Amino acid sequence: MFWCGGLPHAKGGVKKTGFLRSPAEGLNASSASTTNPPTFSPSARVEDMAQPAVLTIAGTDSSGGAGIQADLKTFTAHNCYGTSVVTALTAQNTTGVQAVHPSPPEFIEQQLRSVLEDIDVKAMKTGMLYDASSIRAIVKTLKSHYGDKPMPPLVCDPVCVSTSGHALLQPDAVEVMISELFPLASLITPNKSEAELILSCRSLPSSIDNLEEMLTAAKNIVRLGPKAVLVKGGHMTVTAQDVEKVAAKYPDIRVVRDGIYSENMEILQVSEAPPSSQLVVDVLQGASGAVLYLHPRIDSTSTHGTGCTLSAAIICGLSRGHDFAESVRLGTAYTHLGIELAQPVGKGHGPLNHMHSIMQRSVPSPTRDNPHPFTRLLIQSTAGLWKQYVEHEFVKQLGKGTLPRECFLHFIKTTCISGTTHGPTDTTSMIAAKSDNFPAIKAATDTILNVIDEVNSHKTFCAQWGITEEELLATPESPSTTAYGAYILDCGLSGDRAKLVMAVAACLLGYGEVGLWLKKEAAKPGSWVVVDGNPYAKWMDDYGNEHYQAAVKRGLGEFLSATGGFAVSLTQLAETIETIAVADPPSPTRFEEWKMVWTRCAQLEKGFWDMALHLL
Amino acid sequence: MFWCGGLPHAKGGVKKTGFLRSPAEGLNASSASTTNPPTFSPSARVEDMAQPAVLTIAGTDSSGGAGIQADLKTFTAHNCYGTSVVTALTAQNTTGVQAVHPSPPEFIEQQLRSVLEDIDVKAMKTGMLYDASSIRAIVKTLKSHYGDKPMPPLVCDPVCVSTSGHALLQPDAVEVMISELFPLASLITPNKSEAELILSCRSLPSSIDNLEEMLTAAKNIVRLGPKAVLVKGGHMTVTAQDVEKVAAKYPDIRVVRDGIYSENMEILQVSEAPPSSQLVVDVLQGASGAVLYLHPRIDSTSTHGTGCTLSAAIICGLSRGHDFAESVRLGTAYTHLGIELAQPVGKGHGPLNHMHSIMQRSVPSPTRDNPHPFTRLLIQSTAGLWKQYVEHEFVKQLGKGTLPRECFLHFIKTTCISGTTHGPTDTTSMIAAKSDNFPAIKAATDTILNVIDEVNSHKTFCAQWGITEEELLATPESPSTTAYGAYILDCGLSGDRAKLVMAVAACLLGYGEVGLWLKKEAAKPGSWVVVDGNPYAKWMDDYGNEHYQAAVKRGLGEFLSATGGFAVSLTQLAETIETIAVADPPSPTRFEEWKMVWTRCAQLEKGFWDMALHLL
Repeated sequence: MFWCGGLPHAKGGVKKTGFLRSPAEGLNASSASTTNPPTFSPSARVEDMAQPAVLTIAGTDSSGGAGIQADLKTFTAHNCYGTSVVTALTAQNTTGVQAVHPSPPEFIEQQLRSVLEDIDVKAMKTGMLYDASSIRAIVKTLKSHYGDKPMPPLVCDPVCVSTSGHALLQPDAVEVMISELFPLASLITPNKSEAELILSCRSLPSSIDNLEEMLTAAKNIVRLGPKAVLVKGGHMTVTAQDVEKVAAKYPDIRVVRDGIYSENMEILQVSEAPPSSQLVVDVLQGASGAVLYLHPRIDSTSTHGTGCTLSAAIICGLSRGHDFAESVRLGTAYTHLGIELAQPVGKGHGPLNHMHSIMQRSVPSPTRDNPHPFTRLLIQSTAGLWKQYVEHEFVKQLGKGTLPRECFLHFIKTTCISGTTHGPTDTTSMIAAKSDNFPAIKAATDTILNVIDEVNSHKTFCAQWGITEEELLATPESPSTTAYGAYILDCGLSGDRAKLVMAVAACLLGYGEVGLWLKKEAAKPGSWVVVDGNPYAKWMDDYGNEHYQAAVKRGLGEFLSATGGFAVSLTQLAETIETIAVADPPSPTRFEEWKMVWTRCAQLEKGFWDMALHLL
Repeated sequence: MFWCGGLPHAKGGVKKTGFLRSPAEGLNASSASTTNPPTFSPSARVEDMAQPAVLTIAGTDSSGGAGIQADLKTFTAHNCYGTSVVTALTAQNTTGVQAVHPSPPEFIEQQLRSVLEDIDVKAMKTGMLYDASSIRAIVKTLKSHYGDKPMPPLVCDPVCVSTSGHALLQPDAVEVMISELFPLASLITPNKSEAELILSCRSLPSSIDNLEEMLTAAKNIVRLGPKAVLVKGGHMTVTAQDVEKVAAKYPDIRVVRDGIYSENMEILQVSEAPPSSQLVVDVLQGASGAVLYLHPRIDSTSTHGTGCTLSAAIICGLSRGHDFAESVRLGTAYTHLGIELAQPVGKGHGPLNHMHSIMQRSVPSPTRDNPHPFTRLLIQSTAGLWKQYVEHEFVKQLGKGTLPRECFLHFIKTTCISGTTHGPTDTTSMIAAKSDNFPAIKAATDTILNVIDEVNSHKTFCAQWGITEEELLATPESPSTTAYGAYILDCGLSGDRAKLVMAVAACLLGYGEVGLWLKKEAAKPGSWVVVDGNPYAKWMDDYGNEHYQAAVKRGLGEFLSATGGFAVSLTQLAETIETIAVADPPSPTRFEEWKMVWTRCAQLEKGFWDMALHLL
């Protein structure tokens, strides 16, 4: 998954730190050329299921690209639970800010109390704060709420002026932000002009025109109170040479290059023009170390809300316990890709794409009321065919007792053959061969042993119908049986274990559903299902009343055993495929492949009844 | 994907309708027992890439579970671009509404203008509107903006009172909403008490205590101006018997049952207690037809923001051109599952889970600046090992010309063997066997033919080094060659085509990287790579200067051809695995499997150099 993959790989001094640990711990550099682990990693999957609460204190953007709207979109894309305190409404769009309507400080305070008193916020950020009284209301409320308790990480994005030039912070509020809010902040994230404004406010050298000056600015700002500062380089162009020079001069600076081509990636570049040497470099400075984040400069106008998005993404990382360096790495990667993958919105500076890191699930998660969503979806997606198969004329005639004897004999002979010869043992051996853990291998092997054990009971069953063992062995395999067995084996040869299990499950669950349907129909008052005098009553009874509970427990294995299948738990099977769908959620393509297997099996099963019925 | 899967399956009178078509078209019932297609379907995948803009006009919820916050989360989860107009700020949390701060009507108007004048909104909704002047401002602005042009679908959620009992609409505003806003609305979505309030406002029969009364209420409300009404049944319990009775009485009512167990799903129920017969039924009524949506009643307190979420999800469906019936089907499914999968938030009535329908991508999408994100991620995730392999001592000694002749001979003999005997042809035949389209099969087959053609050139190359054909054939396969070939074949047997292609690509891309690294190092001024007098210069030159451009075009096939591999385009290979990752985005589990294949191949390649180097 996108943003929280770094921890298990974190090396080179990058440690997981809580809010109260020194950020320097997380910023320490192991070497100037450390290649970072990949941004995407599934290893933190379980952690990812939780949805830590995060809070943004900022203005709105009616057009949805910036402000709390950008923040909430970012939180959602990061699977974090978003809360928000609105400091001001803005009427704006991609062409500019048309109007601002600030919230009264008391109402900001009230919103903040409503959130903090009810919800366990794990990380928070501030964006547009508009004026000094808002800032004071926020600082007062945070201090009074947390008191001596540790405050969750607070990232302050010192929004001063919109991209379009609209003032979003009153001039006199800058000093209040520096003196009152910065000391509470874990991290502040100024861009070039905000950093210059902050520095000039304190009469510090404020001109930032190259990478060295960014580093100096960062060092100076961090002395103003925050634990760390991220000076954003979006408004400056830096070259790879500039980075090399700085890295050589300050060997304790860490350079994160996973946004650009790094060493041993020649194969990715051979057919392309040499990558631009123009970089965007963001500088993270803690109390005792700095990290540079490199990304190629993108020629794009889709930058509306970039700063909001970055600080929002950073608190998502912090809310999951990542340190500053890792949270910034993930946040800059998310933001950079959002610009690269922006879609056209509006007539001016459009928003970045907040949804690039997520995709739709093809199969919903299981719930208490619907523990088999995947199987249900498969049945629903083939509802017509599935019904034709389950409520087939063959099955109805069997239930009524009117099925010609020859049809039934054909059916049990061929199922006995497919049950006792190659089909199930081949398939199950192949499942074992494709499994990568002992429980799965043992389950498959047990099934093979069951099939072998059942050969005798099949013979007995056939003998009851006057079919000798010789006759049984002499019965040629019918084309429908061949098709059925061959299709399943083909699934096994062409696909992975999941596809093969789908095929086996589809066939066996179909059988199970037929049995249960007959059973259910027979139980209805005045049912069309005839029991007394029905020559097939014994056959139906084999999975019927007396064995029903046991069969249910064993997942209806009885039915299959009696009809020449092999003992297998239907509910186990359904759970197996549900487990596969949860553990390895299919892409739409993969889901479509599984659905095709299900459909094909239902068709083949139906063909099996068709053949048996139209023998005469 | 989750919500827009219905169209290609839509049967039984459910047609795609635009806003201006009669909703009745979309509501027509084919039969009372139509089983619906599944909620999840990947078939609209391409359509899904677009992010239609949607708009919510509503109040805020600081705690994030309702209001524009819930709407924006829902939009994001549906891959829609969310915009918002704030009618009022609320300070609230899961325990109640602490304060409301309405926006001035002029500022509501200004926000609405900012959005509409810049962004092409495809569907919109209203939520909490607070008072009559807000409603009038909205109606006036919509009318003046759209004039005679068609207005996108507008869903009006007539929010009157919060779950906790706080008034969110002034009493005198109800009449204004009915008389001025409803006529503009495509759909209104009252719950029981809102429907009762609306009806009593017009002195219509207003008591709604059973399913029949819901239907009557829906019919009466639709006469007030909206094109359709959805009366939500969350506050009432209906039984399956009630539904059957109503369905029998009104045969033109369509019943959507995909939220509950429907026919031929006995296998899913055998091991469970019989499903509760208590249902939640939502009633959609158009000008000429009704649809009932059935879901099991859930015992949950996580219902904060349910109404907001539902109407937001509905406009996501409408924004993609789905009709009312389909949009409501998808919206109720999303909302229902959100309640079932809610996570604990706050001390009171918690929010539903808005993120249940999405998952994180394991591999980012390709971009102009990073067309090979998957390969880059694989290299980055194995950076240390990859570097050890590419910059191996064997390769360095080869570049310097100091590699013992025996080591080199061992290397070329074994690569010739693996190149001309079973390895590549077996593997490639298996790729062909696992491919399901002719271009893929042809590409694989061409490669086999290339391998066969190259046998002669390999012999010539070996002859230049004094190795006769007899000696070559007599060379035993080294354990590292066996391991290498066997591992790739094992990938093919245990996995699907994707896994096998990963294995082949990992090995060949590794070879390619080694060649390019040597080439790049040789080009540096004062390089350690020796060309003059290097006995391996010819070997290096085979993929060197004169052939370089051609090699790049053919994806460096030259290098592999010269060293006994087989002609294959490296860039094509990289693109093949990138294409696989885009077409069938891997789950974290699958990504981890692919990464493991990549790692194992890099280890085996490294073992290959190790063996050749330490022969002496």
